Amino acid sequence: MEITLFEEYLNCILDDYKTLNSGELANYIPELAKVDPELFGIAIVTVDGHVYQAGDTRHNFTIQSISKPFVYGIALDDNGVDEVIKKIDVEPSGEAFNSISLEPGTGRPRNAMINAGAIATTGLVAGDNSDIKINRILKKFGEYAGHELSVDMSVYKSESATGHRNKAISYLLRNSQIIERDPEPVLDTYFKQCSILVNCRDLALMAATLANNGVNPITGIRTLSEKYVPKVLSVMTSCGMYDYSGAWLFNIGMPAKSGVGGGVLAVLPGQIGLAVFSPKLDLHGNSVRGLAACAKISNDFGFHMLRISTISNTSIIRNSYNASQMRSKCIRRFDQLRVLDEEGKKIHIFELSGSLTFVSAEIISNEVLSLMKYTDYFIFDFLRISSIDQAGFEIISELMEKLISILKKVIFTSIQDKYGLLKELRTVLNESDNCKFRTFKNIDLALEHCEEEILYKCGMHEDMISVSFKDQDLCRDLEQEEIDFLESFLKFSEYKNGEFIIEQGDDADSIYFILSGQVNVDLSETEHFNQRIAVLNPGTAFGELAMIDGGKRSATVIADSDVKCAALNFYELEKDGSEMSKQVTLKLTRNIAKILSDRLRRTNEIVKSLS
Amino acid sequence: MEITLFEEYLNCILDDYKTLNSGELANYIPELAKVDPELFGIAIVTVDGHVYQAGDTRHNFTIQSISKPFVYGIALDDNGVDEVIKKIDVEPSGEAFNSISLEPGTGRPRNAMINAGAIATTGLVAGDNSDIKINRILKKFGEYAGHELSVDMSVYKSESATGHRNKAISYLLRNSQIIERDPEPVLDTYFKQCSILVNCRDLALMAATLANNGVNPITGIRTLSEKYVPKVLSVMTSCGMYDYSGAWLFNIGMPAKSGVGGGVLAVLPGQIGLAVFSPKLDLHGNSVRGLAACAKISNDFGFHMLRISTISNTSIIRNSYNASQMRSKCIRRFDQLRVLDEEGKKIHIFELSGSLTFVSAEIISNEVLSLMKYTDYFIFDFLRISSIDQAGFEIISELMEKLISILKKVIFTSIQDKYGLLKELRTVLNESDNCKFRTFKNIDLALEHCEEEILYKCGMHEDMISVSFKDQDLCRDLEQEEIDFLESFLKFSEYKNGEFIIEQGDDADSIYFILSGQVNVDLSETEHFNQRIAVLNPGTAFGELAMIDGGKRSATVIADSDVKCAALNFYELEKDGSEMSKQVTLKLTRNIAKILSDRLRRTNEIVKSLS
Repeated sequence: MEITLFEEYLNCILDDYKTLNSGELANYIPELAKVDPELFGIAIVTVDGHVYQAGDTRHNFTIQSISKPFVYGIALDDNGVDEVIKKIDVEPSGEAFNSISLEPGTGRPRNAMINAGAIATTGLVAGDNSDIKINRILKKFGEYAGHELSVDMSVYKSESATGHRNKAISYLLRNSQIIERDPEPVLDTYFKQCSILVNCRDLALMAATLANNGVNPITGIRTLSEKYVPKVLSVMTSCGMYDYSGAWLFNIGMPAKSGVGGGVLAVLPGQIGLAVFSPKLDLHGNSVRGLAACAKISNDFGFHMLRISTISNTSIIRNSYNASQMRSKCIRRFDQLRVLDEEGKKIHIFELSGSLTFVSAEIISNEVLSLMKYTDYFIFDFLRISSIDQAGFEIISELMEKLISILKKVIFTSIQDKYGLLKELRTVLNESDNCKFRTFKNIDLALEHCEEEILYKCGMHEDMISVSFKDQDLCRDLEQEEIDFLESFLKFSEYKNGEFIIEQGDDADSIYFILSGQVNVDLSETEHFNQRIAVLNPGTAFGELAMIDGGKRSATVIADSDVKCAALNFYELEKDGSEMSKQVTLKLTRNIAKILSDRLRRTNEIVKSLS
Repeated sequence: MEITLFEEYLNCILDDYKTLNSGELANYIPELAKVDPELFGIAIVTVDGHVYQAGDTRHNFTIQSISKPFVYGIALDDNGVDEVIKKIDVEPSGEAFNSISLEPGTGRPRNAMINAGAIATTGLVAGDNSDIKINRILKKFGEYAGHELSVDMSVYKSESATGHRNKAISYLLRNSQIIERDPEPVLDTYFKQCSILVNCRDLALMAATLANNGVNPITGIRTLSEKYVPKVLSVMTSCGMYDYSGAWLFNIGMPAKSGVGGGVLAVLPGQIGLAVFSPKLDLHGNSVRGLAACAKISNDFGFHMLRISTISNTSIIRNSYNASQMRSKCIRRFDQLRVLDEEGKKIHIFELSGSLTFVSAEIISNEVLSLMKYTDYFIFDFLRISSIDQAGFEIISELMEKLISILKKVIFTSIQDKYGLLKELRTVLNESDNCKFRTFKNIDLALEHCEEEILYKCGMHEDMISVSFKDQDLCRDLEQEEIDFLESFLKFSEYKNGEFIIEQGDDADSIYFILSGQVNVDLSETEHFNQRIAVLNPGTAFGELAMIDGGKRSATVIADSDVKCAALNFYELEKDGSEMSKQVTLKLTRNIAKILSDRLRRTNEIVKSLS
């Protein structure tokens, strides 16, 4: 693996802080005092699954107190917030990690990050006995870390043999009914949970899973219900660093947790998980180098969750235009284009981009309301929407309800892969009726649909028309005698829906005039006809470029309905050699140039509106 | 003013919660007990300055404890973090608002949100006497609220006459040297600061100013240094709601502050400021309806700062392409185009969009490194960058340093309005040398510059060439006798840099062939020549479309250097009527169509790469 620029930076931090030699190994558990005090590793995992690491990130150590927020998450998943709150409060104790801090009267521990609260939390993990509980915890932790984890039995035995204070706490919890049955199996599970072996990279991935809203960013597995992620992070924020939590939030600003095994882990919500491992601890039981490295990285990169980005001008509307500025790929006759030049203004397209939040959704809402008067069709494209929060969803669904209630047509495009969004929208907007809003795969297809509804209303829909040879766009300004002359060169033919008319690579010798029906132009390799170049309607022609530069066909054309065509062989026309043939050739060439010039102008306008 | 959809929702909340009649008016200060207990208002201000309000949002009341975080901000601005921390800690006390909570030994108040810490904070506001201090506070608060504020003298007198406990606190602070001089003027300022009159809308705007990184979103005035915003928000988060702060963070999740005047204010960083006013208080001294309304709104819209948006796939790179896919607007000859078709791959353009954070900047970084081998010029467009945080800046500047160190050309476009970013980049990348990276106003100009460097290296730069009539693009495939024939119709002319060659609206009768120099096509109204349509080089022609559809000139063309042209009057050509004239007319028309077809194909590719 090549070392990235960012990993070079992490290596510098290792170098700078390895001289930091204060602190002691944890000695209250004999097993913990045996570790190499010089070990030092840093790992960072982003919410899109990039891993950056430096130093001893593969060395295993016991998770200890860092298990607490993750077990708290399991307890929430197993019992719901209301039941958990009955047993454990969420207020900072302002005291040390081993403080007992039970609420007078109820006996509730102040929070789940101190030992008393953590033992009570372990009591809430589903399972009747210690084995079931620890297996559930191991399975969940394994999902966070992305691989199977195990308990270090010698550390577990050591903790179990010396954990008298925790034993006392567990009986106090039993005494006040916070633990409702025998506390011994709960305590046994707790000791095992603290002795789970992890490495620095595991912890960073566990933190990144919280940063990624409870979904492991590498495996894609959800490990914690979305609704409990802010709860776990809240408790880490207010209580994660014990009586140092206020200063930690003030200085470093990431929900965090440390353990006497030498690990410390921090979460920058929506961005990264960070973990540092180095075994020597300060008087609070935190890794000395761990805290220093976290502070340094947070400070260098401004990883404070309450830091707000410098420039804040939301560009939620990437593009906004109507259908007289941008057409579908359906190539239409001049008379239809003239109608759409005017009526296209009734179709408005919003290409959305970025995060849909309260602020950005309100921007859309205001913009839509200002266009209401002139617009019948609203197309919203979700292709570049990167996130939608609850507030964004509420505002957008309220807007849709409003639009639908006053009979505007609402269309969503590129929304098919947006997780539950579409389903939620359907639920909010209409339980029973499926026709309140429509979805299309992309803007082009939505545009074509709206254009056709408008043409239909104006009596100009394709189903209703066929266009004779003399009324073809390419025959404009031709005299009747010129038309008569050309007709003697025409070959009429009919194609069934799906039939090939010309194929890419064929020799080109004719212009095809569409008399009725629709054709599809396709550039794809054989067998895969997905990439739609254009749809052509009666009155328009294809294959006309061959008349100016000959050669082979550059695309395949397929009948998209039953089609009638007239083919004009221009080599035969040239062979004729008469004055008349030269005259009509010049006029046809001029008309081809005119149509190209018109299309180029329209396409340039599209480029302008897109950039 | 029309009521927005969101304001309808706020009105519903007023209706739902006005039945909430528990609680008492503040009675420890006689003046506060005189207010109408039914008053109820809600206001929300977004970081882009939209205001939503419902109910009694214009009724004035005293700010009370809500003043504390804002005065804390002033103290930070006046003294810096280190000095302030010496006097006031940042740990939650876990106790009530009037708890004394001084640190044993130092006598430091636990935090600036309890009365003891707030009085100490007021002592740190710059100014020798009470008048100077309160005027400084009034001025700052006025900047937060967007208009001048004043002290309610009767409430002030009432507080001053009955505030014995606060007086005791101030002398304890004097005793432990937290207040270093006479505490009476400090206490007097504190009473006045608590008696400043505000309304609900003011508070929402004050909160929104914090949400907007310290800049009032309506007036644009910075009221708090950027670096202190996370500090103030951190203290509000951990200590703002006293012994209810943990539960508030857990349940509502916004940095907040309430006051016994009946106001409560909350900040959703980067998004909104929220304020509720209703005077009846619970046992903790918080507005009953205020807390209920905050909880309801936070819950309905998911306004929890630790809530992470659902879908998280960053789309920082809006478009990525090289200069063989997308050209500058400079129209070049076929032989130049052929060179750029190949060599254009050495120029790569990244159109960036959205927030530049650690994660998104790393995406760019990885993408750039993967293209390093084939690319000599990197163009980064900042037009749609909406925010840049510190981590994003660090990663990008490190990447630029790397690129520049291996002699890649780095170009930034649309960066001129990005605040301090450009200046900071210059500082980081080169103290002395200005040539390490370049900036252009837009991508088009940057592309043209890079194309020309490449053409220059291939010996094809405009400065070096002139193109005779027979080598013009439009004369391809013409026989020598046809060239000779056409030359008899040409008129040669020269134009100085800046001179008009044709003007929009002129009658069109000629095609202009460029023999040497460059011309600019411009569509703008007279006098404002900004919107560049295209730049044309020797060997290309303009005015050629008139030959196919006549009419008036659709654009103005201006000499962009000293220019030599040959003009072909096509009416004279037509008038000639000879066989030869018909033959060359057909060939010219066909070449026009070919060039149009080529341009249309290229433009369609641009559309494809843009969408």
